[in-house]
Formats: sequence, C-alpha cells, structure tokens
Amino acid sequence: MSSERLIYLPLGGAGEIGMNAYVYGVGKPGKERYILVDLGVTFPDMDGSPGVDLILPDIQWLSDRRDQLEAIFITHAHEDHVGAVAHHWNKLGAPVYARAFTANIARRKMDEHGHPENVVRTASAWPETVAAGPFQVGFVPISHSIPESSGLVIDTPKGRIVHSGDFKMDADPVVGEPFDPEVWSALSTPEVTALMCDSTNVFNTHAGRSESTLAGDIEALVAGAKGMFVTTTFASNVARVKTLAEAGQRAGRTVCLLGRAMRRMIEASVETGVLKGFPKTISPEDTKEIPRENLMLIVTGSQGERRAASAQLAQGKYRGIVLKQGDTFLFSSKTIPGNERGVNKIINQFSELGVDVVDDSSSLYHVSGHANRPDLEKLHKMVKPKVVVPMHGEHRHLREHVKLCNSNGMCAVLAPNGTMVDLSAETPSVVDYVETGRVYLDGTSQIGALDGIVRDRIRMALNGHVTVNVILDDRDEPLGEPWCEIKGLAEEGHSRAPLVDVLEEDLNQFLGRANERTLIDDNKLEEGMRRVVRQSAMAEIGKKPEVTIIISRLSA
Amino acid sequence: MSSERLIYLPLGGAGEIGMNAYVYGVGKPGKERYILVDLGVTFPDMDGSPGVDLILPDIQWLSDRRDQLEAIFITHAHEDHVGAVAHHWNKLGAPVYARAFTANIARRKMDEHGHPENVVRTASAWPETVAAGPFQVGFVPISHSIPESSGLVIDTPKGRIVHSGDFKMDADPVVGEPFDPEVWSALSTPEVTALMCDSTNVFNTHAGRSESTLAGDIEALVAGAKGMFVTTTFASNVARVKTLAEAGQRAGRTVCLLGRAMRRMIEASVETGVLKGFPKTISPEDTKEIPRENLMLIVTGSQGERRAASAQLAQGKYRGIVLKQGDTFLFSSKTIPGNERGVNKIINQFSELGVDVVDDSSSLYHVSGHANRPDLEKLHKMVKPKVVVPMHGEHRHLREHVKLCNSNGMCAVLAPNGTMVDLSAETPSVVDYVETGRVYLDGTSQIGALDGIVRDRIRMALNGHVTVNVILDDRDEPLGEPWCEIKGLAEEGHSRAPLVDVLEEDLNQFLGRANERTLIDDNKLEEGMRRVVRQSAMAEIGKKPEVTIIISRLSA
Repeated sequence: MSSERLIYLPLGGAGEIGMNAYVYGVGKPGKERYILVDLGVTFPDMDGSPGVDLILPDIQWLSDRRDQLEAIFITHAHEDHVGAVAHHWNKLGAPVYARAFTANIARRKMDEHGHPENVVRTASAWPETVAAGPFQVGFVPISHSIPESSGLVIDTPKGRIVHSGDFKMDADPVVGEPFDPEVWSALSTPEVTALMCDSTNVFNTHAGRSESTLAGDIEALVAGAKGMFVTTTFASNVARVKTLAEAGQRAGRTVCLLGRAMRRMIEASVETGVLKGFPKTISPEDTKEIPRENLMLIVTGSQGERRAASAQLAQGKYRGIVLKQGDTFLFSSKTIPGNERGVNKIINQFSELGVDVVDDSSSLYHVSGHANRPDLEKLHKMVKPKVVVPMHGEHRHLREHVKLCNSNGMCAVLAPNGTMVDLSAETPSVVDYVETGRVYLDGTSQIGALDGIVRDRIRMALNGHVTVNVILDDRDEPLGEPWCEIKGLAEEGHSRAPLVDVLEEDLNQFLGRANERTLIDDNKLEEGMRRVVRQSAMAEIGKKPEVTIIISRLSA
Repeated sequence: MSSERLIYLPLGGAGEIGMNAYVYGVGKPGKERYILVDLGVTFPDMDGSPGVDLILPDIQWLSDRRDQLEAIFITHAHEDHVGAVAHHWNKLGAPVYARAFTANIARRKMDEHGHPENVVRTASAWPETVAAGPFQVGFVPISHSIPESSGLVIDTPKGRIVHSGDFKMDADPVVGEPFDPEVWSALSTPEVTALMCDSTNVFNTHAGRSESTLAGDIEALVAGAKGMFVTTTFASNVARVKTLAEAGQRAGRTVCLLGRAMRRMIEASVETGVLKGFPKTISPEDTKEIPRENLMLIVTGSQGERRAASAQLAQGKYRGIVLKQGDTFLFSSKTIPGNERGVNKIINQFSELGVDVVDDSSSLYHVSGHANRPDLEKLHKMVKPKVVVPMHGEHRHLREHVKLCNSNGMCAVLAPNGTMVDLSAETPSVVDYVETGRVYLDGTSQIGALDGIVRDRIRMALNGHVTVNVILDDRDEPLGEPWCEIKGLAEEGHSRAPLVDVLEEDLNQFLGRANERTLIDDNKLEEGMRRVVRQSAMAEIGKKPEVTIIISRLSA
C-alpha cells in the first residue's frame, strides 16, 4: 500500500504568464488533502479569443475533489493571481486566505459576485501561520510591484515548500516591505524540499533595479514639462503611483486620478494602511479650475486598453479633459508583449494631437516587478531547496529556468500546467498528467476554450457569413427560390453581379437538379447547399464563407 | 493665373510603416504631370482586418488623374514598396521603372496577375536617368536590407528632389553597393529643394551597425551548435541569407532553403547577378541523407507567420523534417511590433520540443536595415535640402523627425498621408488635403476599409451571430413558430435552458403580441425581432449578438 506523498500540480501559470493556480497536496495517492495557491485570470486577445471577457484556468480537476480542498491562499492582488477567485469560488467553496490589502481586493470581488465576503480571511505575516488540514502556511513579505506581496512557506508532514510568488529583491520598494535577505535565508532551516520560483525575467541577465531609483528621473521630467502632465502605470503599482504623484506635488501640480481601477487601488491602499501620505487629489470636474501647467493626471490604460482613460484621452476627450500641443504623456510602464499594437495606436494619436509622449525606451521611468536572472540565483542560494520548480512563465521561461538551475548544479523539474510532481520522492519526479486548459468568461457565461464557440466566431471573422433560407412545400418541392443574406463579404465579385444574386442563382440550379432523396433529407440538402455556396463564393470573391442554412418545411 | 509648382503628396507610407506610395507633381495647379514613387502593401491583423489578405493604399485620387501620370518608380523590392504594383496597375497603366533585381521581382508579380511583363522597365543606376515628362529620375544606389536599394534624384523644372528610399549608411553591406558618402554629398549640387527621408529608426539614438559585423558572431554560434541548425530571417535580406549560409558552410554544414519566398529571392538574386558564390543548397528531401549535425536550414517565417516554414517546424513537421532536443533555432531578425504573439508562440513550441532558441535580444545576430538618428542627421547634412519631409514612418516617427530637423536648425514639414505640400513655394507649405485610405484585398476582391464589410466580421467575432427565420402566411400571420440558429454563442445561459429555446420562446411571444401594422412591415418586424433577440441574449448570456433575420412571406 502506497505511503503518503507531497504533490505539486499547476493548473495554470506554468506555461503562460497569467491565470496562476497551483495545487499542493499531502496524503496517500488519491486521498491527498489539498490547498490551492492563487486563482488568477489571463486576458483575451482578438487573435485567439475574440469577444471573450476573461480567461480563467480550467479547475475541473480540483472542483471534482473539492471535498479534499482545505483552503485557497492568495499571494498578492494582481489579477493574474486573484482575478478568478470570485468567478470560480462556487466550484471550490473553500476559505480564502490573504494579507489585508489583498483580502480587501478579494472581498470587493466576492461582493460583486454575491458571494459571502467573510469567506475571505485576513492573514498576518510570517512567522504567524494559517493551519489548513496538514498544511501550515505562512505569508512571508516579499517585494514586488503591488503592496503586501508575499511568498508562502508551506510546512507539511512531508516537508517544507517555499513558494516565491511574484517577486523582486528590492531593498527600498517605496511602498510595502523591503526584501529581507535574513528572513528569506532563515527559511532554509528546516531543509526546504522544493522552491517554486517566479520565472518571468529569467532571460534578463542584468541586476534588477529598485523602485526607489525612479523618483529622481521622474521628478526631473515632471519639473521640466510645460503643459499638462499625464502619466499612466498599472493602477496596482501603488508605489509607482505614489512616486508619480509626489513628483507632481513637488513640481507644484495638483494630482487627479483618472480611471476606476486607479481610484479603487489607492482607496484600498489607504483603507488597509499600506499607503500613507499620498498627495491630495481632485476630481476630474475640478481640473477645470486649475491651469493645465499646474495639473498632473495619473490615468489607467498603460497597455493601450480600448476603454481605459489613456485611450479615451488619445481619442480626444475624457471626463471633459482634452490634451493638446505642449502636453506630456509618460508611460511609466512596460508594454506587455502582445499589447504593442494598442499602445502604438495611442502614441500615434497623441502625436497627432501634438502631445509629447515619453515611453520606457530610456529605462529611466520604469523598473520591472520581477527578479532578473542574477536575483533568481540569489534566491536559490538563500532558500537552498532540494529541488527548484520554475513557475510563473511561458514554456521558454520555465525551460530556461531549469537550465539555469542545472548550470549551477541544482536539481530542477520542468513542470508545465497539468504535470503532477511528487516532491517527496527521493528524486522529485512527474507522477501524473492531468487535463488542464482554459475556460472563457464570455459575457456572463463560462464556456470551454475548446467548445468550438470561439472557433466559430474566428471563422466568421476570417471568412464572413452567408445565411441561406429555403422553403419546401408539403410535397418536398422548393417553394419559390432560395434566398441568401451575406454579412462580412464583398457585395460583388468577378461577374460584377451582386454576390447574393449569384449565390441564389447557383442554389436555385442546384435545387432544380436535386433528386427526391436529397430533397427529403435535411442533412443531404444542407450539405449540398453549403457546398454550392462555398464553391460559388470562391469563384466570385475568392473566399469560402461560413454558411448557416435554414430549411423550412411546410406541412400539409 | 497661377504659375507652375512642384508638389508632394503621400498616398501611403506617411503615417504607417507600410504601403508606401508617394506622388510628385510638376505643373500648374490641377494640371500637374505626376510620377508615383513606390506602390506597396501593408499586412492585415486579426485586431483590425481579420480575414483580409493584403492592405493596399487607396489610390483613387491618382487613378482619377491617370492621364497625368508619367511613370511609376520602385526604389526596392520590399513588399511595402512593390507589393501593390500588380494589384493596382490596371488603375494606373503607367510604365514601371526599377533596377534589375527589383524589376525581376516586379515582373514576377505582373506575370502572376496576367499583366504584360514588359511594362516593367529596367533602369540603370545614377548618373544615368529616366525621363518621364518633366521629370528626370536617377536611381542612386543606397544600402538597405535588400539588394539594389535605391534613393531617387528627381530633377524637375521647379527644382531637385532627393527621395532617400529606405536606407542605412553601410560601408560594407555584404551584398550590393555600399553607401557612398561622396555620391550622396555630390547630390547637393544643384541645390536640393527637398529631401524626403526615411523615418523608421528616428528614435534609435545609437549609431547604426554594418551588416558585415554579424558574420563573426553568427559563425561562432553555428560552430558551437550540436544538432541541426535552423535559422530564419527575411527572405529578401539576401546579404543575411548569404552570411548565414556561409557560416553553415564553414562549420561543415550543408544548406537547405525552406519556404517559397526564400527560394524565390535567392533565385532572383542569382538571375540578376547581385548574388555570387552562394553555397550549394540541397532540397528538403535530400536532407534525409545527411546527419542532422551537418545540416543548416534557412527558413521563412521570422515574424511567426502561420503558414511559413518556421511555424510548421514548430508545430512538429515540415517537408518531412522534424526538430528535436539539441537542435538550435536562430531568429536572425527583429520582431516587428504587433507580431510578438505569433513569434512567442513559435518560441514556446520549440521550447516544448527541446529546441534551443536564440533570438535578437543579444543584438549579436541582427542589425536593422534603417538609418538611426545620428545617420539621419548625417544624410541631412550631406544633401543640404531647403526642407526635409519625413516619410516612411508612423505619425510619431514623422513628428520626431521634424523635431530633430528643427533642433538642428533645418526646415521640415510634417506631411502625413493625404497632405499635399507645395515644395516650390518660398516656404514649403501644405496646399491641400486629399482623401486617402486603405483598400483591402479580401480573397480576390478589393473592398474599401470603410465599407463596413470587415466591421461586420469583427462584430460577429466579438458578439457571435443569431439567424432568425420566420414565415408569414398569406394573411400576414406567423406560420408556426420562429426558428433560431446560433453561431459563436454559449449554448445555454442563466436559465439553464438551451439559448435557442429561450430566444424562440421570446420571439414567439413578441409575434403573438405584435399588431398588424408590425406584421405587414418587414422593417418594423425585423427591428422588433432584432431587439428581442439582443435583449433576450443579454439577459441569458450577457452578450448582444449580431442578428440576421429572414422573413418569408407566402403569397396566396
């Protein structure tokens, strides 16, 4: 009979940067007690998930075992770590633990979804711990780009796990606790079985920089600006928002926060006491009373999001505010790969307005929230785990992180989503593969990424759509001629006649030739008509459209 | 009566990097004789132009004046300069001049479209010139990232124009002519009225590097590789392909070119004599005979294009070739902004196969083909124009280029697409704005970007689609119940009943309530039913779908 083991199973976050969801289990195989660390979302894009609102990890595996789930722990309040909690909570039902700031954000989400807020419990920092079945979990403060980020110490009867969470080694993070090498080094006793480690910046070979290094350059830029000064960063980067606001204040500018997320994050930071002494802000309406050279707007939309404040300002006007020649717009942020088109669009729109845009290319106005390669190596050496398991990265990041460990003589396991690793084995190794995937929040429905629904939408976007209507009488003879409507297709093609006319004519000929066996059989009829439409459209306009065929049969 | 003038009018390329099309005219206002410089395409994306095959400049303005058009000049064979020639030639009908290599590529395109090949005429290099009405046009060799790139000297009765084309200052470009400062300085006599100047790299402040600086690092990388060595670059970067192939040859590897564009470009280069001594290559089939450590593949798909060789290899297999653990894949290329998702996808797929990917992040294996800021300033000083008109850039590039000129005490004009500039005026200035835009090649049709066709496709991708069918009898009463089909929508929503059932039920109720005035009026009926579907879907699944309504009326 098999003995107890300690397993690790990423359901999200190991194979992408986004939708983090890591399961740990202790117990006999199949009888483990579980905890879940983080439950985040990732964001859709037009290429692969048009029309989708959010992408959630598929947690079916864990939901099927919800009786074995002790608790959910959230390391920090970024959307890719906390964003799916309220969407998925019904399927898990376990208590959610987080530190005060993160818990504040999580409770707002639970509230919006009508879940009980008291499911979210505020945890204190390490060395205090939370007991959850066989797990003792401690929140160890670690620096990142949002207040109160934490790594986790997870003590179990089968050994200690250190879960880094997202982190950087910042001795002066402006807001929140600095990275404390003594605390992190002390975690190595008792021996650490495994370190689950952030991989985001494994390809960045230079040493990371502190958040505090930015203030001087930002102040100089603001002080030298002539017109209105507008800047964007991630709303959750409260330290940055503070640095920006203080630079504005020193330059004699009054600060206005624009965008719901921006106001909400500052509110949560003040409520939970992580942010103190933030400059006084005014409402968008009150900006009218102040000369533009005395104003600083801190706005949402650093990634070019269509509905955010930055995009709306770039299009001309937002909350009555109009930017113009001589104003400055600072991206105190990095463009996440994939968002370049949206960001460039905004920059060009600002250029058309005569606004001077300053971006991250100089490296003066933004630092990353993730540890670069040399700092990853430092953490490995402090924590001294038997094995490193890279997480929080695309496959290329995880693989590079494994190679980095190996080159330093450390054991490491490549464990992408769905890989169950037995960490308590003499040599930690993969013991199972579990079906994982993505669930789309589409409007208010959750749909599977592989259900074909979004695939159909992509096909309509690529190929256009034809609706065909045909009515058959009670003798299965066509009543009148078939009728087409097109959407998203050229209105005429080679023959210079309207495309619908050509399609209808070809369908009519097809029906004229069709024998009774076809006419009485909806499937055959549909198949034949679809083929005619696609061939005919191909000849006319060089495209094979998606086709919906409606056959109406009049009964006698 | 107004006197003769010299005008400049970009129809494409000034406001985007792509679809270059620059008009010059000489004569009395409205009676000018014209030439067109370059006629390129730009590439569609899923965000803004799903399903579109190519984006062409809208040349209606010039087509309306085709009798005044003397000739088309193509500076070099990149798709954004030559790609629309064959698509648009019918609307212009003028002779096309280019140097031998560019002409070879242009003729292949004309041939594919069934146009007469002899429309494309091969021009010799400066100081020879081509006469075209009042224009004398010389092709001045300039270094770029494709063979035989040329700037143009355009002499007119109203002054000399220098059109830089795409360029860098490369003293040793490996293939093709080096940049010759003496030739370019000599162009400043007689005085240059205007310099139209590439703006692509105006934000890059460091000095540009020569193509020849790459060979050493590429050779070292290839020499150190263990398994198969696969590399990609733009097929048209013949110098790079040569450097890569020679590095392979020196490392004892046999070279195989994969992808149609790759073979076609090398073929054209050899045919026209611009490429000599290219290593012998083998066919994909013959690679089977050679140990993988003795092979080098040079493949298409540096931008992650879905159907290119790189993407197919990343998915597992292409032309019988399978990559595996220990192989190396080098991107000897930069990812064009907007293509990051596609490229990252491939890199992660290679990572899953165990292939080591080397990209441009070290700057060792790629240099740009465009002049950086310091080299732009050098060209300004060599050519000494009365005015610089930035071209080949997004709005932000053009604007920055103007600011650069002004900061150096030079006159410059910001002239985005559609801006007609009178260059012969005492102070060159904008005299007119012309409607410009984009035409989509969609399958085999050309459709206007603003026709609403692609907008409908985007809407279907975002919102899904519902087809509604209703039959009315000869008394305008519904015959049976209405019938829905959905595409790209969740199959059930809040009520847990199939979405189509809910929609049909709500439509049926609507029809039951509808008065005769509605039932006899197709427009009213359609409007009402569309509203019902959208409201009902919103309540069920939180989305408002696109709706096609088919009303069939049975006549008595």
